[in-house]
Amino acid sequence: MMRVLVTGGAGFIGRKLIARLLKDGQVGGTAISKITCFDVVAAQGLPADERLEIVTGDLSSPTQVGILVGKGQDAIWHLASAVSGECEQDFDLGYRVNLTGTLNVLDAARRAGNVPKMIFTSSVAAFGGPLPDPIPDSQILTPQTSYGAQKAACELFVADYSRKGMIDGRSLRLPTIVVRPGRPNAAASSFASSIVREPLAGEQVVCPVAPEAKMYSLSPRRVVDALIHAITIPSEEIGQVRSLTLPGLTYSQAEMMAALERVTSKKVVDRVEWKADPFVQKIVSGWPTTFTTPRAEKLGFERDSSLEEMIQAHIDDELGGSWAK
Amino acid sequence: MMRVLVTGGAGFIGRKLIARLLKDGQVGGTAISKITCFDVVAAQGLPADERLEIVTGDLSSPTQVGILVGKGQDAIWHLASAVSGECEQDFDLGYRVNLTGTLNVLDAARRAGNVPKMIFTSSVAAFGGPLPDPIPDSQILTPQTSYGAQKAACELFVADYSRKGMIDGRSLRLPTIVVRPGRPNAAASSFASSIVREPLAGEQVVCPVAPEAKMYSLSPRRVVDALIHAITIPSEEIGQVRSLTLPGLTYSQAEMMAALERVTSKKVVDRVEWKADPFVQKIVSGWPTTFTTPRAEKLGFERDSSLEEMIQAHIDDELGGSWAK
Repeated sequence: MMRVLVTGGAGFIGRKLIARLLKDGQVGGTAISKITCFDVVAAQGLPADERLEIVTGDLSSPTQVGILVGKGQDAIWHLASAVSGECEQDFDLGYRVNLTGTLNVLDAARRAGNVPKMIFTSSVAAFGGPLPDPIPDSQILTPQTSYGAQKAACELFVADYSRKGMIDGRSLRLPTIVVRPGRPNAAASSFASSIVREPLAGEQVVCPVAPEAKMYSLSPRRVVDALIHAITIPSEEIGQVRSLTLPGLTYSQAEMMAALERVTSKKVVDRVEWKADPFVQKIVSGWPTTFTTPRAEKLGFERDSSLEEMIQAHIDDELGGSWAK
Repeated sequence: MMRVLVTGGAGFIGRKLIARLLKDGQVGGTAISKITCFDVVAAQGLPADERLEIVTGDLSSPTQVGILVGKGQDAIWHLASAVSGECEQDFDLGYRVNLTGTLNVLDAARRAGNVPKMIFTSSVAAFGGPLPDPIPDSQILTPQTSYGAQKAACELFVADYSRKGMIDGRSLRLPTIVVRPGRPNAAASSFASSIVREPLAGEQVVCPVAPEAKMYSLSPRRVVDALIHAITIPSEEIGQVRSLTLPGLTYSQAEMMAALERVTSKKVVDRVEWKADPFVQKIVSGWPTTFTTPRAEKLGFERDSSLEEMIQAHIDDELGGSWAK
């Protein structure tokens, strides 16, 4: 039997992961007896289930985290994080949640003493500065955001705690998630989901970048697959290097629109208006978009097979199989 | 006028740096009005000088560091660190001094508000795991020691605080320092200095690694040169990437002994007994020894011109120009 903790469980990936774990009832053949969903707010919309416990609290409190993790869960998905934009605006918040919070989780896991498996969600935002194209697994992390710096540093700590046998950790650098459900958010990457999601819902939307603008993305469904797959890989297969850049799809916005038209119709695609916003365009043009990911692929992680699959996953998982004609 | 802080000022590099700053009286043409030497113990052997203030305290205390750095020094050399062996043995000590201590210095410097120049001493121990030969400037840091993980993480924070305009920081990855003065210490690299230093002092010494064992090294004199040079480089020349691997010399122990014989005599070299210690040999064989360092070289950092120069620097600076014949 396996006890599970998901931090950031109220976020959209956290909720999808928890729903999937409850549905599967097991991970790698081991039955799940309990799932603790931890976040700063209570998670909404999760199924009523006696295996599920919802806890709210503050990751930056060593005491709270000590109580939370001290129960000795067998698997920890540490997804909780302040997002990129928040970390740039509120310097202290980013360091408190993303650095101190993660160190608190690591330290509490160490003190629990049961060497839990731990998945840490890092980001391709950990890359930055002068970069080759494509970016190899061996590329140095010189992030150009506080968020990226915090993620890159925590990868180092996850690796160090793992090397010392205190946890069995794996850090996954996630691509931009497309199609992200819900409403647009403050992230500069928000448009990448909006220009698919809103037209499918029958809404007009403005694309603030040029059709040639590229993106490196993975669908929510594939992200959840990766989070679960990551916990089932034997430690010795991971080896010394505990961080992996996940395989994603590199595509232009024009290519995404062509795929949307193939999956739906020209009428749906015509709901997108192209109107470049120099501010967004500048941020997005600085992002790395092409990666080679042989390590993750060898370990069995998979990208979406096509843009059509990314779109269809959103239609199936969020829209009940249909879209606004 | 310039006020200066040196953390770890009681260490051998700290004392050499402070002595040099007092002697030069200026850095990059700006006169030094005050040097604060901070360490956990009071520095010994520094010249009496009214510009010099010696302070003892604990870097892991935000209050103490706030008072120390809150004075708004113009230049901070943050050398203080628990060493590699200590960090492997005492996990909490390493994180407390090397991570929390450095974060405290960064945060106090930020709060001081005067955007000080800051030199952070990282280490080639930040490299580890599967490595190419030679190691390029762009190589990812996957350290295999807690010390290396802490150094690599702090490089990220120095870069982030610099990017945000809170400090003007530069991280230097130091090679193994040879010839280190004083007595042998617990570091696995201790022999590299001992096999030169002890014979020059007329003492017998055992070399615990094979003559072919390689090392990547820099003399104390060149390290002090680099620490001072680093503070004089304009921020825009450093650019986005704030970390540099310093140029060093790659050599085998046999080559060092041949150089020692050229500088002195066969009699001196015969004071070295070769007796491999499998434990030391194994650690040393895991260290990276060949680096390409075009970034640092372009910025004007220099390696020793020869092994003879490294040996002669020790004879001149530590032995008053002569050795035990």
